Amino acid sequence: MTAPFATLSEFRLTLEAQGGPDMASIAGAKERNSQLTKPPGALGRLEDLAIWYAGWRDTDRPTITSPQVIIFAGNHGVCAQGVSAFPPEVTVQMVANFEHGGAAINQLAKSVGATLNVHALDLDMPTQDFTVAPAMSEGEVILALTIGWNAVDPQSDLLVVGEMGIGNTTSAAAVAAAVLEGTAQDWTGRGTGVDDDGLARKTDVVARGLALHDTTDPLNALRCLGGRELAAMAGAIAAARAHRIPVILDGFICSAAAATLEKAVEGALDHAIAGHLSAEGAHRKLLDALGKEPILSLGLRLGEGSGGTLAIGVLRAAVACHSDMATFAEAGVAAG
Amino acid sequence: MTAPFATLSEFRLTLEAQGGPDMASIAGAKERNSQLTKPPGALGRLEDLAIWYAGWRDTDRPTITSPQVIIFAGNHGVCAQGVSAFPPEVTVQMVANFEHGGAAINQLAKSVGATLNVHALDLDMPTQDFTVAPAMSEGEVILALTIGWNAVDPQSDLLVVGEMGIGNTTSAAAVAAAVLEGTAQDWTGRGTGVDDDGLARKTDVVARGLALHDTTDPLNALRCLGGRELAAMAGAIAAARAHRIPVILDGFICSAAAATLEKAVEGALDHAIAGHLSAEGAHRKLLDALGKEPILSLGLRLGEGSGGTLAIGVLRAAVACHSDMATFAEAGVAAG
Repeated sequence: MTAPFATLSEFRLTLEAQGGPDMASIAGAKERNSQLTKPPGALGRLEDLAIWYAGWRDTDRPTITSPQVIIFAGNHGVCAQGVSAFPPEVTVQMVANFEHGGAAINQLAKSVGATLNVHALDLDMPTQDFTVAPAMSEGEVILALTIGWNAVDPQSDLLVVGEMGIGNTTSAAAVAAAVLEGTAQDWTGRGTGVDDDGLARKTDVVARGLALHDTTDPLNALRCLGGRELAAMAGAIAAARAHRIPVILDGFICSAAAATLEKAVEGALDHAIAGHLSAEGAHRKLLDALGKEPILSLGLRLGEGSGGTLAIGVLRAAVACHSDMATFAEAGVAAG
Repeated sequence: MTAPFATLSEFRLTLEAQGGPDMASIAGAKERNSQLTKPPGALGRLEDLAIWYAGWRDTDRPTITSPQVIIFAGNHGVCAQGVSAFPPEVTVQMVANFEHGGAAINQLAKSVGATLNVHALDLDMPTQDFTVAPAMSEGEVILALTIGWNAVDPQSDLLVVGEMGIGNTTSAAAVAAAVLEGTAQDWTGRGTGVDDDGLARKTDVVARGLALHDTTDPLNALRCLGGRELAAMAGAIAAARAHRIPVILDGFICSAAAATLEKAVEGALDHAIAGHLSAEGAHRKLLDALGKEPILSLGLRLGEGSGGTLAIGVLRAAVACHSDMATFAEAGVAAG
């Protein structure tokens, strides 16, 4: 499926036209859940996760066999403002590390049996510094959305999108502040570990970006303040819905990119859950704004899709319990 | 290794003689962790988990390839007091379900690649009703501890112990109340789902048990108020330490059994972590008393080792990141 949009207006129309969960599959999954050999509700959130997943897979007894993790990498003109503790060269170095299998996400994807794909987006051509110009033209943001859209394997049955991009917590904070309530200070955090001076500098940069651009339209906020990897994540999340593939969101940056979809079209993230609560300060606030309760809370603040990928194991276990357990009748167990 | 004890006094001596973590492996693991291609601390709790695991495996670069899950099942004389929403026959029915692969724990163990073993302990001979007599004689509790001890595969590299036993949240509440601070009311919860009357009845039963027995010695509390499956879990947890096998604790009942070890000999659970926070009311209080922070919190209240087994996936991912990631030098990434 080629990306069915060539402008941001068309992308919005694509989001508006997307379908919801299959209610018959949800009803069937609830009925099955009530017959499984366990006290009612004893698997807690695992039961809700399995039923949710069933609705998006159009079956009351789904399986997860082919999860896909996609990392998008981008570089940010706003790094010129001294917002990161790492030099921009690290983005391309880490992409090489992903490709050679040496990063955390490689081990995590392997550990949960997921395919890992990496897309480096014009790393030698950073976005514009959003304190002086829109980060991307409409053509550039559409290209990034399209790359994200096309990166999704239609045969996969679960998607995690992650990112790498020195400077992108600054970009994500600006996007979050633009599309949700609150100030630059509310949304700006320490990222990979800037000191107090660095944090003050980041906050000021975010505030200047917010003052410069018209971000009434969430998708225009993504264009003006985001980065290519944020737009690509948004495109991939939207494509997953078109393929009936549920999504696990990663941390702050992924969630900020996703928020532009939800704010553009309410419900656009109904096929997505939050994999984890990251240690980046404003992530809880961001998940609250999206109405998403994280599956894990382990203090990760790495990006790369790491927390989302770790949560694949939990979701797959939930679905395995749902679809493969015996019913009371099958097992000859008294139902209490 | 045959169980090196024939009395509760000898079991205590066994606990006292056990070794601690290998400090050189911990130091080596910390050093390695500092060189991995990620910002310092960015993997959050995964880093702590991997370093802890390394210390008990006597290597700074461990792997997890052979996790073992063991379920012990027992029946409880105290069921005569009407403390459970399910009839005692369900214990043996669920053991058959485990053996045929139909229970939640079968799917969870498969999902994380763990071996699952099931030990049914004299199900046709329930323990004594602890409101009228000690649940077990010394010979009986030693037999259960020994079965647990011998059930651990010395070649495994991670252990989860779980249980099945109608009535055993009552037994666990009594054990917890006896070895920790607080009253019967503080420790008694709804288990698999008793109503208000049932909860009042359970609390009264626990209070009567506490009044009847001398539980100054935590191991005697295990004998008088516990069950065979609780004692077997305690024996297995102790054996794991002898084999240098780290342990992931499951929910309330497993944690109550484990607490008898820690209260008998301080530090006896240093090789164990808490897999999850269950929905059973007093589990948080129990984990706080043990100084254990749960890895997962998903509202499970099933037992069977379910939450501990789900956490295997997280610990294995943590260890995989630690041992298989590239260092900054290996990957040619600037360390910031």
